[in-house]
Amino acid sequence: MIKINEKIINLDRKDTFHNVSSEVNKYIKNNPTKKVLSLGVGDVSKPIIKPIIDAMKSAVDELSKSETFKGYGNSHGYNFLKEKIIEVEYKDFNFSVDEVYISAGSKMDVTNILELFDISSSICITSPTYPIYKDGASCLNREVQLLKSDDKNNFIPEIPNKKFDIIYICSPNNPTGIAYSNEELKKWVDYAKKNGSVILYDNVYSSYIRSKGIPKSIYEVEGAFDVAIEFRSFSKDASFTGVRCSYYIIPNGVYKGINEIWKRRNINRFNGADYIAQRGAEESLSNESQKLLVENVDYYLENARLLRESFLKCSFKVWGGIDAPYLWIKTKNMTSWETFYFFLEELNIVIIPGIVFGEEGDNYFRVSSFGNRETIKTAIERIEKYCEKSI
Amino acid sequence: MIKINEKIINLDRKDTFHNVSSEVNKYIKNNPTKKVLSLGVGDVSKPIIKPIIDAMKSAVDELSKSETFKGYGNSHGYNFLKEKIIEVEYKDFNFSVDEVYISAGSKMDVTNILELFDISSSICITSPTYPIYKDGASCLNREVQLLKSDDKNNFIPEIPNKKFDIIYICSPNNPTGIAYSNEELKKWVDYAKKNGSVILYDNVYSSYIRSKGIPKSIYEVEGAFDVAIEFRSFSKDASFTGVRCSYYIIPNGVYKGINEIWKRRNINRFNGADYIAQRGAEESLSNESQKLLVENVDYYLENARLLRESFLKCSFKVWGGIDAPYLWIKTKNMTSWETFYFFLEELNIVIIPGIVFGEEGDNYFRVSSFGNRETIKTAIERIEKYCEKSI
Repeated sequence: MIKINEKIINLDRKDTFHNVSSEVNKYIKNNPTKKVLSLGVGDVSKPIIKPIIDAMKSAVDELSKSETFKGYGNSHGYNFLKEKIIEVEYKDFNFSVDEVYISAGSKMDVTNILELFDISSSICITSPTYPIYKDGASCLNREVQLLKSDDKNNFIPEIPNKKFDIIYICSPNNPTGIAYSNEELKKWVDYAKKNGSVILYDNVYSSYIRSKGIPKSIYEVEGAFDVAIEFRSFSKDASFTGVRCSYYIIPNGVYKGINEIWKRRNINRFNGADYIAQRGAEESLSNESQKLLVENVDYYLENARLLRESFLKCSFKVWGGIDAPYLWIKTKNMTSWETFYFFLEELNIVIIPGIVFGEEGDNYFRVSSFGNRETIKTAIERIEKYCEKSI
Repeated sequence: MIKINEKIINLDRKDTFHNVSSEVNKYIKNNPTKKVLSLGVGDVSKPIIKPIIDAMKSAVDELSKSETFKGYGNSHGYNFLKEKIIEVEYKDFNFSVDEVYISAGSKMDVTNILELFDISSSICITSPTYPIYKDGASCLNREVQLLKSDDKNNFIPEIPNKKFDIIYICSPNNPTGIAYSNEELKKWVDYAKKNGSVILYDNVYSSYIRSKGIPKSIYEVEGAFDVAIEFRSFSKDASFTGVRCSYYIIPNGVYKGINEIWKRRNINRFNGADYIAQRGAEESLSNESQKLLVENVDYYLENARLLRESFLKCSFKVWGGIDAPYLWIKTKNMTSWETFYFFLEELNIVIIPGIVFGEEGDNYFRVSSFGNRETIKTAIERIEKYCEKSI
């Protein structure tokens, strides 16, 4: 009998997004007349803006004619997109196209990158956090250790005393909505330099950063070119969650010859992102599109502000929702699953129980601002109506 | 200092597609007036047919409106496409949508699937073959053994005496162009059943099969439901090499609960294929599109026939090119790299040296029929003109 990877079998546990969805679906099935609103999902609600739609249609047209047909592209992405990313997103730095990788989704990128490092590398993950880092690493037979944090340190873990080879940092953070300041990141960069570590910096919510002192890229932090790999996505601002296009930067300073080495892996493991998606992503970085996308992000941030205000009014303790689409909220004398069921059954609102993001999240829940305004407003009405009750 | 995965460092060798491209590019740069023709690349030359173009454009349009916008899909793919695949490609079998996975490229699929199995699993690869199986497995720190074959056994290796947990079979084969018969596959299925092994069946060229007795799917072979995972792609018939859409089947019979287990991995590692690509793929399986795509494949197979005839006329020994887009040709008193340079420098034709597909390929070279007819005809003229010489 074939032996299955036990690490995958062990992913079977109650505290997952998947089980949250199952519980929601079960409730909806058993209560077909209830109007359930989602503040759970990390998916956008805004459709794709017209200039990007037009660019993608014209890319589709190119594929219809022999003269303009595109087959396999470079497995690391087209230069037209890499150059645009460097120009628009990294204009203050001197990256070359060889340091930029176009891919088809940050979820796979943040785990796939582990293939670059020795399998014995020690990995630490700042927790509570996106569970994918830990579960993805498990699939690759890699062990991780959690650096826990709580509200006493604003959910930013202390720098560890021991050495880790690889450190995952998600900022703006999913689920806490907290964005690291330049000063806080500098401590991690210094730690990494001292210990010869690499920081895997998941920055897919970078376009939500509006506060001063919060770097939009880890490369704004002195020394980061030598230690940090930054991941970004077109999902959360250009609404590419269904289109699939992401990118990441591996600076040459991280390791001598690192980009030649990684390209050897990549040409054996990936055949490039969709051409249509790459053309759409290119257009998302034009001046015209950037203005429209800032409006979209503003819309979600206004949702977050309204939600934050409402939860505060109801005497909840709230983190995040300022430079991020997520709010992280302390439960009231309930576990996070109890809170989940309370919101689902009493208010018909979906939230994410904090324990999905790690054990230390069990006194919290995550609220997303990605819904449309009407959903947010109706949810707020329901919450405020019930806010006298002890939830 | 961070420790790099040595398996990736070790991918640095001379005999790769990448180095073939580098050599070709160097030659073109140094000889700008030469008209170099490619019989090397495994990429299609036909543009995407109109019904698929229209379906993709209409999918793009859906993404532009709130009411029809699609965000994250199921990480295993949309049911509309899975159902169409079952109906058109597997109509004689009883697969459920839970056994079908939509993905974004077979290159990643054939290696990613290894995450399903214990890291100590023994892997054998029938060689010469697509180098990705071996090199991809290396990236995941998995060791492989090669089962070598040669022209004495028509490049179909003998069934091994020892037990392997995982067996890679590519049929129609890249590079040899040889498609396994039902009888030959049955031997492997029986071996797998006896040893509790799993066959990873790379069948991305299935639409090129025209001979009787050659199964279009491994599931035509008795017992295969219990041992085989089949990989297919929209790249080589629907010209999706730039669009990225693939699929694979994991029958429930392979292992109890295997699809629940694999889905746990998948939701942590992948966020689904592009919606636009999935709508295009769906259309490619309509009656109208299927007729047009058969014409496209016929066109490449006619290229293969013309090439085959020409090489035979020049007294080469030729395999493949009947149920596959590739010809596998014996060199004449030269190594495969020497043959490569001869074709490049004397005929200005790109072929792939056989050693790229394994050491035992060093007396062979691969010729692809994916070019347009004009390229193929001009190449044939050049080859026949020189065929008196000892190449």
